[in-house]
Amino acid sequence: MIILIQCKDQVGLVTSISGILVQQQLNIVSMNEHVDKAQDRFYMRLEVEPLVDVAALEAKIKSVLPEDAVIAINQQLQKKIVVLVTKEYHCLADILIRNFFGTLGASVLGVIGNYTNLQNICERFDVPFYPVLYSPSILNEEPEEQIAAIIRQLGPDYIVLAKFMRILSPGFVAKFPKQLINIHHSFLPAFVGASPYRQAFERGVKLIGATAHFVTNELDEGPIITQQIIPVNHSHTAADMMKAGQEIETSVLAKALQLVFDDRVFVYKNKTVVFE
Amino acid sequence: MIILIQCKDQVGLVTSISGILVQQQLNIVSMNEHVDKAQDRFYMRLEVEPLVDVAALEAKIKSVLPEDAVIAINQQLQKKIVVLVTKEYHCLADILIRNFFGTLGASVLGVIGNYTNLQNICERFDVPFYPVLYSPSILNEEPEEQIAAIIRQLGPDYIVLAKFMRILSPGFVAKFPKQLINIHHSFLPAFVGASPYRQAFERGVKLIGATAHFVTNELDEGPIITQQIIPVNHSHTAADMMKAGQEIETSVLAKALQLVFDDRVFVYKNKTVVFE
Amino acid sequence: MIILIQCKDQVGLVTSISGILVQQQLNIVSMNEHVDKAQDRFYMRLEVEPLVDVAALEAKIKSVLPEDAVIAINQQLQKKIVVLVTKEYHCLADILIRNFFGTLGASVLGVIGNYTNLQNICERFDVPFYPVLYSPSILNEEPEEQIAAIIRQLGPDYIVLAKFMRILSPGFVAKFPKQLINIHHSFLPAFVGASPYRQAFERGVKLIGATAHFVTNELDEGPIITQQIIPVNHSHTAADMMKAGQEIETSVLAKALQLVFDDRVFVYKNKTVVFE
Amino acid sequence: MIILIQCKDQVGLVTSISGILVQQQLNIVSMNEHVDKAQDRFYMRLEVEPLVDVAALEAKIKSVLPEDAVIAINQQLQKKIVVLVTKEYHCLADILIRNFFGTLGASVLGVIGNYTNLQNICERFDVPFYPVLYSPSILNEEPEEQIAAIIRQLGPDYIVLAKFMRILSPGFVAKFPKQLINIHHSFLPAFVGASPYRQAFERGVKLIGATAHFVTNELDEGPIITQQIIPVNHSHTAADMMKAGQEIETSVLAKALQLVFDDRVFVYKNKTVVFE
Repeated sequence: MIILIQCKDQVGLVTSISGILVQQQLNIVSMNEHVDKAQDRFYMRLEVEPLVDVAALEAKIKSVLPEDAVIAINQQLQKKIVVLVTKEYHCLADILIRNFFGTLGASVLGVIGNYTNLQNICERFDVPFYPVLYSPSILNEEPEEQIAAIIRQLGPDYIVLAKFMRILSPGFVAKFPKQLINIHHSFLPAFVGASPYRQAFERGVKLIGATAHFVTNELDEGPIITQQIIPVNHSHTAADMMKAGQEIETSVLAKALQLVFDDRVFVYKNKTVVFE
Repeated sequence: MIILIQCKDQVGLVTSISGILVQQQLNIVSMNEHVDKAQDRFYMRLEVEPLVDVAALEAKIKSVLPEDAVIAINQQLQKKIVVLVTKEYHCLADILIRNFFGTLGASVLGVIGNYTNLQNICERFDVPFYPVLYSPSILNEEPEEQIAAIIRQLGPDYIVLAKFMRILSPGFVAKFPKQLINIHHSFLPAFVGASPYRQAFERGVKLIGATAHFVTNELDEGPIITQQIIPVNHSHTAADMMKAGQEIETSVLAKALQLVFDDRVFVYKNKTVVFE
Repeated sequence: MIILIQCKDQVGLVTSISGILVQQQLNIVSMNEHVDKAQDRFYMRLEVEPLVDVAALEAKIKSVLPEDAVIAINQQLQKKIVVLVTKEYHCLADILIRNFFGTLGASVLGVIGNYTNLQNICERFDVPFYPVLYSPSILNEEPEEQIAAIIRQLGPDYIVLAKFMRILSPGFVAKFPKQLINIHHSFLPAFVGASPYRQAFERGVKLIGATAHFVTNELDEGPIITQQIIPVNHSHTAADMMKAGQEIETSVLAKALQLVFDDRVFVYKNKTVVFE
Repeated sequence: MIILIQCKDQVGLVTSISGILVQQQLNIVSMNEHVDKAQDRFYMRLEVEPLVDVAALEAKIKSVLPEDAVIAINQQLQKKIVVLVTKEYHCLADILIRNFFGTLGASVLGVIGNYTNLQNICERFDVPFYPVLYSPSILNEEPEEQIAAIIRQLGPDYIVLAKFMRILSPGFVAKFPKQLINIHHSFLPAFVGASPYRQAFERGVKLIGATAHFVTNELDEGPIITQQIIPVNHSHTAADMMKAGQEIETSVLAKALQLVFDDRVFVYKNKTVVFE
C-alpha cells in the first residue's frame, strides 16, 4: 500500500504520521521524505504493509496533518491511460509493447491519433484506435472536443502525449489538470516550441535531449518529471539528430511513466518532487 | 546536527526515533531511511536542528533501538584525513586544492608518499609531506610500520589512498577498519589487480571506469562507495585509456570523499548504503 | 555505396585508394580511417557516390592493397537477420517494432525460440517463429542442429542472440563466424557467466551495464561492439537490477545492431574497430 | 606534425592532399575528414611523420586546394595561454595544476583577475597574477584596455575565461577573434545570461550542464566546443546546483582546452567541427 502526503511543513509531522502507522499495526517498508524549505512544504511517500481499510486510514492520517494536506492512498491497482499520437511510432510502440507484456504499470484504454498511420500497430495489439483528424487550420476546437469526449468516456488516470504534435488549447488543458504527460523533443528549457532538432542543429550543440513533463498552459513550461541527453557532433545532420533524439524520447517517456505509475511523482506549482 | 543509525530492523523504529526527536524539540531538516530486507537491517540518516547535548540524545535514541544499534551523532565538525600517494599527482592535487580553498569537507593533516616527487606540491600548499620509501622487495613490513606510526601520530578520521600503488598487508588494514578509502583505476569488479588500463585495452572494452571503495583484506573487494565510467574506443591506446581514466579517478574519488565527509555512507559487510 | 577495407598497414594506402576513387569519378561523401599501430593494421570506411559496378571497383582497389586485404563493397541493401530468444521479450520486441516500421536497417527472416512464450508477439508482426525446445540436459546437440538447419535455410547475414539463454557449443559457433551477435547482461568483463545481476547485487556495485559482442568460443569473451551502464544503489534488489538492466540491454543491442547494419564495425582478433 | 585544412568542398580533395603527402614521403598516422554538406565545406585533420619544412609543405598543399583554404601546420609546439578570472577558484586551480605538472598541453603566461582573491594561488605556482579591478559601473572601458594591453604584452595563442564574470565589450572581443574561450555555467542555449543556476532551480530542471565555447559578440552564442551535464533533483537548492555545477564546469573546460590545444577544433561561422 502506497501513501502519498503533501502539505505545509510543520514540526513533528514524521512522528505524527508514523505514530498513526504503528497504531494501525502497519509496517513501513520504505519511506521517502522531503522538506522544500523555499516553499515551506512537506512531501512524504510511504510503502506500508499489510493492506488495510483505506478510508479509515486516510481519515486518521488527515487528523494529524495541516488543513491543506493532500493525501493519496494507493492499493497498487494498475493505472489507466489514454495515449495521444500523431505520426511517429517510437513512443507509442514502446508503450504498447510494455502494455502487452504487462510491465507498463498501467493499462492502455485506447489511442487517439490525428493521423491514421498508427492505427495498424494498435490493432495488432488489440488496443482501440480513435482517429480524430484535424483540418488544416491550426485552431481547431472541434477535434479537441472529440478528443475530450473520448477521454471522458474512457476515464483514464493519465493522458500521455506520445509525440502528439498539436498544441492543445488552454480550455482543453484545464479539463485534465495534472493528468496530461508530454514528451518534448528537447532538453527544456532549450529549444522551446517547434522543430527543436532543427534549432539544435543550427545552434551547433554537442548534446541533445528530451524532457517528459506535465502539461500546463504555458507552452513547454509544465513541471518536469525527467530529462536525459545524448551526445551529438558535427557529423549529425538535423535528420540524424532527430533519429538519435527519438531513442532518447522513448527512453525518457518510459522512465517518466514508470515514475508516475509507481506513485513517485509529486507536483507543486511548476515543479515536481520525484522519489526515485 | 547529523544522526546516523544502523541496526537490526524491527517494527516501529521510525516512530520511536522520531518520537525522541519531538520530545527533545528537535526539528527534522532531512531524513533518509532504508530497510535492507535481504539482511534485515535498518539504516537512517537524519539532519536535525538545533544543536543539543550529544551524549544525552544518543542515550535516549539508544534506549528505543535494538541492542546491536550503531549510532553516530555528528555536529558537523570537519573531518581530518591523511593521504597516501605514490607518483601520480591528479587525485592528490584535487584534494590539496579543495583543502586549500576550504571546500573539501575535511582538513588534510599530512601526506605520506612512497616516492618524493609529490613533496613539492604539498609544500606549495603548506601540507606536511612524509616520505616513506620502500625497498625493492614487495613485502616490506618496515615502511608499513612507519606509515602506521605517522597515521597514529596525526590521528585522522580517514586515510585516503590517492593512487597509492602498494598493496597493504592484512595486518595494516586491520589497524584501520572502515577508515581506509581507496580509488581503484577500473570499474570493479572488472580488471581487479595490476594494470587495469592495460587489461582494458587488451580486452577491447568500450567503457572504462574508476571505483572508490573502503579497503578490506580482499584485494579490490571492499565495499564500493561510488563508481563512474567514460567511453573509449579503438583509437585509444592503453596510454590514452590511462590518461582518460585519470580524469574519472579524480572525479570519483572527489565524489566519494564528499559523500563520506558528509556522513552519507554506511558500511555493512561488503556493501555500502549511500544516501545521496 | 559503402566500402570497407581492412589490411596490413603500409605507407600510401590513403593515396592509392583515393586515387582509384577519383579515377572512377566517385565522390567521397564520408571517410573514416584508423591505423592500429599495436597490430600494424589499417582500417577504412568510405561512403562514395554514385553507385558503380561493384566487382570492377573491388578489383581495382584490391590491386593497390596488400595481399591480406579484406574488402567489402555494400550497395546499402538491407541486411537479413535471424533472432534467437528464450523467454524475455524486451530485446526481441524492440527488434520486431523497428523491423515493422522499416527502421531496423535489416529485415527479420525469422525468430527461433527455445520456449514458446514469444511466439504470439512474432505472429502479431507476421514474423515466422520456430520453436526448438531443449530437453533438461544442458548439453544438447539435437536442438543446436535444428537451429543450424533453420538458420541455413533462412540464410541470414547475422544471427542475433536477443537474450538467448543457452550456451552454444563450439561446433555451432564455428559454423557462423563473425555472424553471431549477443547481448550480455553485464558490463563485461565484470560478471561473466550466469546470473550477472545476482552477482552485481552481491558485490554491491553502483553501476550495472550491458554489452553487445560478437560470439566466439570463449564464453563472454568475443569482440565487444558497444557497452552502456546505468546507476544503481542500495535500494535496488537483484530483481530491481534485472529490471533496470533490461532497459539498457534493449538500448545496447539496438545500438550495436545499428552500427553493424550500417557497416561501421570491423572485427580483428578479439577486438572491434567501430566508426561511429 | 599536425595539418589542419578547411576549405570549400570539391571532388578529389583527399586524393590531392594525400598525393602531396606521399610525394613528400610523409606517413599518415591518423586522419579525420568531414564534409559539411549543408555548408559545402571540407575539413581535414592529419597527423603525419616525420617532421619536414613547414613552409614548403604548406605551399604544396595550398596549390591543390580551393582559394579560400585555411591551412595550419603545427609542429606540436606547446600553446601559450592567458587566463581571466573573477572570484571562483575551481577552473583556474585545475588549469594551474595541469600547467604545473606539464599536462595542460599549453603554458600559462599569466592570470588576469578583476578581484585579488586568486592572487595567492597563482603565486604558489609561480604564475604571474595581474589584478585589473573594475569600478562599480558595468560599462568600463579602462579595465578592458588594461586587460588588452596585458594580453598583447604576453602574446598568448588563446585567452581562457575561467569564470570571468564580466561581459566583454564588442570592441574587446573583436581584438581576439577565435582566441577567446569561455566556460558558461549552463547547458546552452538554456539559461543564457546571469544566474543560470538560479534559473535552473526556478525551472525545476532534472539536469544541469556547462558549455565551453568560443566568444563572439552575441552573448553566450559563440561556437560550442563541448558540453556536459549532471543530474539534479528536488533536493538540490540553487546553491547545491551551483556547487554541483562547478564540478562539471571544471571538467568541461578542461576537456575543451585539451581539444583546442590538441588542434582538434575547427571553427566556421557559429559552429565547430571537433575531431575527438
